[in-house]
Amino acid sequence: MRLKFDSRGLIPAVIQDAKTGEVLMVAYMSRQSLARTLETGKVHFYSRSRRKLWLKGESSGHIQTVRSFHTDCDQDTVLLRVHQRGGACHTGYRSCFFQQWDAKRRRFRATGRKVFDPNRVYRGHLSKSD
Amino acid sequence: MRLKFDSRGLIPAVIQDAKTGEVLMVAYMSRQSLARTLETGKVHFYSRSRRKLWLKGESSGHIQTVRSFHTDCDQDTVLLRVHQRGGACHTGYRSCFFQQWDAKRRRFRATGRKVFDPNRVYRGHLSKSD
Repeated sequence: MRLKFDSRGLIPAVIQDAKTGEVLMVAYMSRQSLARTLETGKVHFYSRSRRKLWLKGESSGHIQTVRSFHTDCDQDTVLLRVHQRGGACHTGYRSCFFQQWDAKRRRFRATGRKVFDPNRVYRGHLSKSD
Repeated sequence: MRLKFDSRGLIPAVIQDAKTGEVLMVAYMSRQSLARTLETGKVHFYSRSRRKLWLKGESSGHIQTVRSFHTDCDQDTVLLRVHQRGGACHTGYRSCFFQQWDAKRRRFRATGRKVFDPNRVYRGHLSKSD
């Protein structure tokens, strides 16, 4: 696999709902998180802020199971089509891309679908980022 | 609009076919290319290799017309749902993500849909990147 990782050793990963086509999130993978993702079939990222491997859904239970794995013509970005349990976004929305530009008002507004209450799901957890 | 541009002044943009949901490509936008995109309704990127603003489809005619514009919870990535004329990929595929991982053979193989012949479309053009 000849993927191009950047100077930090990371590659951007687009996560898409395999069933609906909804783009759920974009995050970064290291070689190790990508290998772990393919071995286990569960999406793992690399957290740039926490500087560690991160199983998506670790504390929320909202794991992403890989349905197919793709790369682009430059091989510097990957696309994973997944089954998403619960919601992808730590704010409770199904997709992290829940804000849509309103051209008339010149601002973003939340138009996404809220599927869980983050205060319930992350209760007792230190990190709300997965 | 409070988007977070990186240290190079760029933000990654996921381009999705508004009709089919297919992820067509990921490229980078500067503040200027994003402003131009919203003003004109035609997707403009910033080319990191050529260091310039770039109208997608400039030489190929395969322009992308914006249908809706979204950002994620961190506001460090944008998603544009577009109408794609022709194909997004300079190789002739509809999507740049035309390579799918074959777990048994442990390699990527082209599974995407080829929609044009790049040798015809880019004939006489110096750049094959748009």
